[in-house]
Amino acid sequence: MIIELINRLVYLVTCRLLHTSSINSLIYQNRQTDLTICILRSAFPNDKMTEAHPQPDWKILVAERRKHLDALIPAEWKLSEEFKASLPPDGRLLQADPVRGSGILSNVELDITENYSAAQLLQRLAWGDVSSLDVTTAFCKRAAIAEQLTSCLTEHFFSKARERAQYLDEYLKREGKVVGPLHGLPISIKDCYCVKDIHTTVGYVSFLQNGPERSNSALVDLLLDLGAVLYVKTNIPQTMMTADSDNNIYGRTLNPHNTNLTAGGSSGGEGALIAFRGSILGVGTDLAGSIRIPSLCCGLYGFKPTSNRVPFGGVVTGAIEGIPGIEPSAGPLAQNLDDLEVFMSSILAAEPWRYDTSAIAAPWYRPKPQALLTIGVLPEDEQYPIHPPVRRALESAIEALKKKGHRIVRLPNEPARDVAYGNRLAFQHFIYGPQPDHISPSGEPLIASLTKPPSPMFSGPFPVSQDLEVFQKISALYIARKQYSEAWQKAFIENNLDVVLAPSAQNTAVPHDTYGWPPYTAVWNFVDYPACVIPYGKVSRELDGEPMLVKGDVQPSYDPEAVDGAPCSIQIITPRYQDEKCLAAARIIDKDIRD
Amino acid sequence: MIIELINRLVYLVTCRLLHTSSINSLIYQNRQTDLTICILRSAFPNDKMTEAHPQPDWKILVAERRKHLDALIPAEWKLSEEFKASLPPDGRLLQADPVRGSGILSNVELDITENYSAAQLLQRLAWGDVSSLDVTTAFCKRAAIAEQLTSCLTEHFFSKARERAQYLDEYLKREGKVVGPLHGLPISIKDCYCVKDIHTTVGYVSFLQNGPERSNSALVDLLLDLGAVLYVKTNIPQTMMTADSDNNIYGRTLNPHNTNLTAGGSSGGEGALIAFRGSILGVGTDLAGSIRIPSLCCGLYGFKPTSNRVPFGGVVTGAIEGIPGIEPSAGPLAQNLDDLEVFMSSILAAEPWRYDTSAIAAPWYRPKPQALLTIGVLPEDEQYPIHPPVRRALESAIEALKKKGHRIVRLPNEPARDVAYGNRLAFQHFIYGPQPDHISPSGEPLIASLTKPPSPMFSGPFPVSQDLEVFQKISALYIARKQYSEAWQKAFIENNLDVVLAPSAQNTAVPHDTYGWPPYTAVWNFVDYPACVIPYGKVSRELDGEPMLVKGDVQPSYDPEAVDGAPCSIQIITPRYQDEKCLAAARIIDKDIRD
Repeated sequence: MIIELINRLVYLVTCRLLHTSSINSLIYQNRQTDLTICILRSAFPNDKMTEAHPQPDWKILVAERRKHLDALIPAEWKLSEEFKASLPPDGRLLQADPVRGSGILSNVELDITENYSAAQLLQRLAWGDVSSLDVTTAFCKRAAIAEQLTSCLTEHFFSKARERAQYLDEYLKREGKVVGPLHGLPISIKDCYCVKDIHTTVGYVSFLQNGPERSNSALVDLLLDLGAVLYVKTNIPQTMMTADSDNNIYGRTLNPHNTNLTAGGSSGGEGALIAFRGSILGVGTDLAGSIRIPSLCCGLYGFKPTSNRVPFGGVVTGAIEGIPGIEPSAGPLAQNLDDLEVFMSSILAAEPWRYDTSAIAAPWYRPKPQALLTIGVLPEDEQYPIHPPVRRALESAIEALKKKGHRIVRLPNEPARDVAYGNRLAFQHFIYGPQPDHISPSGEPLIASLTKPPSPMFSGPFPVSQDLEVFQKISALYIARKQYSEAWQKAFIENNLDVVLAPSAQNTAVPHDTYGWPPYTAVWNFVDYPACVIPYGKVSRELDGEPMLVKGDVQPSYDPEAVDGAPCSIQIITPRYQDEKCLAAARIIDKDIRD
Repeated sequence: MIIELINRLVYLVTCRLLHTSSINSLIYQNRQTDLTICILRSAFPNDKMTEAHPQPDWKILVAERRKHLDALIPAEWKLSEEFKASLPPDGRLLQADPVRGSGILSNVELDITENYSAAQLLQRLAWGDVSSLDVTTAFCKRAAIAEQLTSCLTEHFFSKARERAQYLDEYLKREGKVVGPLHGLPISIKDCYCVKDIHTTVGYVSFLQNGPERSNSALVDLLLDLGAVLYVKTNIPQTMMTADSDNNIYGRTLNPHNTNLTAGGSSGGEGALIAFRGSILGVGTDLAGSIRIPSLCCGLYGFKPTSNRVPFGGVVTGAIEGIPGIEPSAGPLAQNLDDLEVFMSSILAAEPWRYDTSAIAAPWYRPKPQALLTIGVLPEDEQYPIHPPVRRALESAIEALKKKGHRIVRLPNEPARDVAYGNRLAFQHFIYGPQPDHISPSGEPLIASLTKPPSPMFSGPFPVSQDLEVFQKISALYIARKQYSEAWQKAFIENNLDVVLAPSAQNTAVPHDTYGWPPYTAVWNFVDYPACVIPYGKVSRELDGEPMLVKGDVQPSYDPEAVDGAPCSIQIITPRYQDEKCLAAARIIDKDIRD
């Protein structure tokens, strides 16, 4: 039965990846019969198109792009092969401190990039204590080094960034005031955001031919109006639908804590870059965990707000617009909670509706101050066993919170709101609609983590019959999702919960291409609840010495040797639209688990 | 061409009304071929079902229900046939003051129902100056009279209401505090809200057989938790999709200003009841104008918030859940702006997310105080010419506002955001999905205003091809709607507008079954902008003496004799989610047009 489901699923996901992208020849996966057409098509993808318009070899396109980007890194910011070879072979990049070792950054630049939060840098920038040009140059250099060691960037535009920084410095000098609350701060953004004159490929070779963008995404316009400096776009996985940020153009992002481990995805470039302190504040997007997975893998704070609180307009996803389902969120990754709040409050004070018609105009508000919380603990789902170091981090947090006087409610397992069921339902929302194929037009291959596509369908059947007609299925999925949301609403109300505390994932960062489906993050996208990842502790092969083999070969097993030293984390969740409360509670918890 | 379109439309709408309701046999109107099936089906509606389960005669069901409801009105609250016959034949019910004439209300009860706003009554109730039992009894009596003269109610439950009022009085006495901010206030609600143990039919005879409800709609639970007293549900049109609140169970609601005119719809019962002061605060729903049309017809203030700010969960509409399109809003109707704000701020302070998973948790906030506004004036759409008294009211408001120093920007006509185009696109969103048929199962006939279904399709073609496959059509409609919203966003930003000022409709209340399609209200549902109707002036056959014949027989003409004395109104609109700003600006405008 399970084998049959997995087979079916592999068909579905493969079909989805191999579909033609023309809206006139969309193939729908809504009836059994469509599957046949779908499989036939996948055998002969775009045969006619290829004949009529012969495509240039994808490898040539990629080589040209890489050469172009490489040339944009100043020679004096480049690491020699010799230097790279001198780095220790264990992959512990951060530990080896290659930035200091490279001698590329001055002591002032090391100080700027290492010793402040974004909030603190913003104050120094506004006071004129430090210039935007100095801050921008420091982060550009560090990002260039990060790129050479972890492939965390897609596009970079350092000289444009420094021109803008100079403009902002002159503005401040001339006008005696800042352009906005983010004046002069370099901010990194995920590749899917459009920046005028810069490419957006989201890792599809076929998108290289689209040429540079003609306009900015809504959030890019907003960030610029607030005074930010953009300097890099960050790496993602081909399709943005796996946790391994790997693609045939920009390569595979490595985790700077341990380059043998994934940096997570799909905002994996952000994770690696910020962990490397090549960025102080980054913007990701999250449809199943894509902000939180790199955060948990790279030891960062990451916040997925309720959808449409931060503008998502003009982001390139490659998906068909308007099909009802799970809505993506845009949100920040940073080294601390202050910086997440700086981002959220600045964006929401700037009337995002002016930039994006789908953005919610409600301003960021201060929730009622609260010292003691009622914290519900998400039960472990037996389908998704938690790795020993993740459990240790969670239990240690619970003990610390109890000691501080917070009320802990261990929620029982309930079928109506269990993680495995929610994930199957979420997966069905992902796959029921048409999915254009942006891969086969270029002839590039699938990345490794997509050849065995991640899925939760080993854990049970599709909740809604796959054979319903389109409108019936849309309605049935809608109703099932509402019921699932109501079960979570009930859990919050009946237990008088302020937040739910959960693992961020069953695992920490794991070896490349083994992350699998992200059940503990995706479930909160499904109900559209805000969720914040807090780094907490590290894997220790001494304390968490027992390996754990997870059966079925679709989830990561725990190997204490492989992940020793990887960051652990916890996740804080509040109901939909309670973004303010989520960050406020995360701040209390972050403090109380460390005191 | 236009004739062809109208013919096609009549097919579509007829099909929609005659579809079978079984989810397993939904018929989709998405391909040409489906139209044929659709027409075939409409010739033999539910033939098999009728054979298998013979239905009781619908007239018997209705007669039983009406008898039951009539028996629930105490004998001493009944108007004699003689009294009714004594009322003047011109239909000017409010002018004749039948409440005072009937002698049913004491002087205290007349005072309670006539001389206070809801906000004032709430203060008196909280101070114990007046008991909830007295207030509730006064409004029950007045509602009973209104029902006998205007058919404004569906279900009523006066004795239950008085029991609850007594409970609230005892609570206040015993506890020394109110249950909540709406303590003791009778509030009327549209029939589509479910109240435990009470029928919800939304005017479908077939729904009578569903029996009484087993639970409350989300908003009903919320209102009760805030201390409100529920006592009546109010009349709607069969299907809730016309502006004439007429159905085969509860009859046709008459406009108390002039019973020869429509009270509007679909919240028409609310309009008539509140104009009659049989309710001080009522709750309607609005998908194309259903709060604002009764408000403009009956001389009331009505507010359609952004969707999902006021919980809509558990409302009966008869539609298939989850099909993407235009979202309905719930909102208040009242005699003044204070009372609209009391409603909105009380509901939004009560954490509506606790009652409804789709309700937005953002609290009601105070917008920045502002004395002078920049007011954009919506241009008249040549397809929908404005009747002379409506134009006079609008121009008089503009002159008054100019004098007070507000900046007036007369917006030019632009195809990307014109009213006719927006309405055709909205209409296409309404009709593209499956529509269950709840009429033919009982054998009841269509009401008069549905035999020539209202539609904007005389004004041009369908904006999106009707022949697209389902997913393509969903996406194309989504994109067209986004572009239309962006055109409106641009108008607000480029002109630095605080609000748009518009006619509420091309007409005032008009003779029964002539209202047609509501272009000037529906357009704001389509972009999901909050909109507030403000009553302003009256039709005068002296000032607006020239009749206006509107061609095509699908829109109301202007007949100065027929509508003399009918209330006029204006409409204030702000962008999506700026509900707080909409009401704040409406308050400034309401004051400045009268000074």
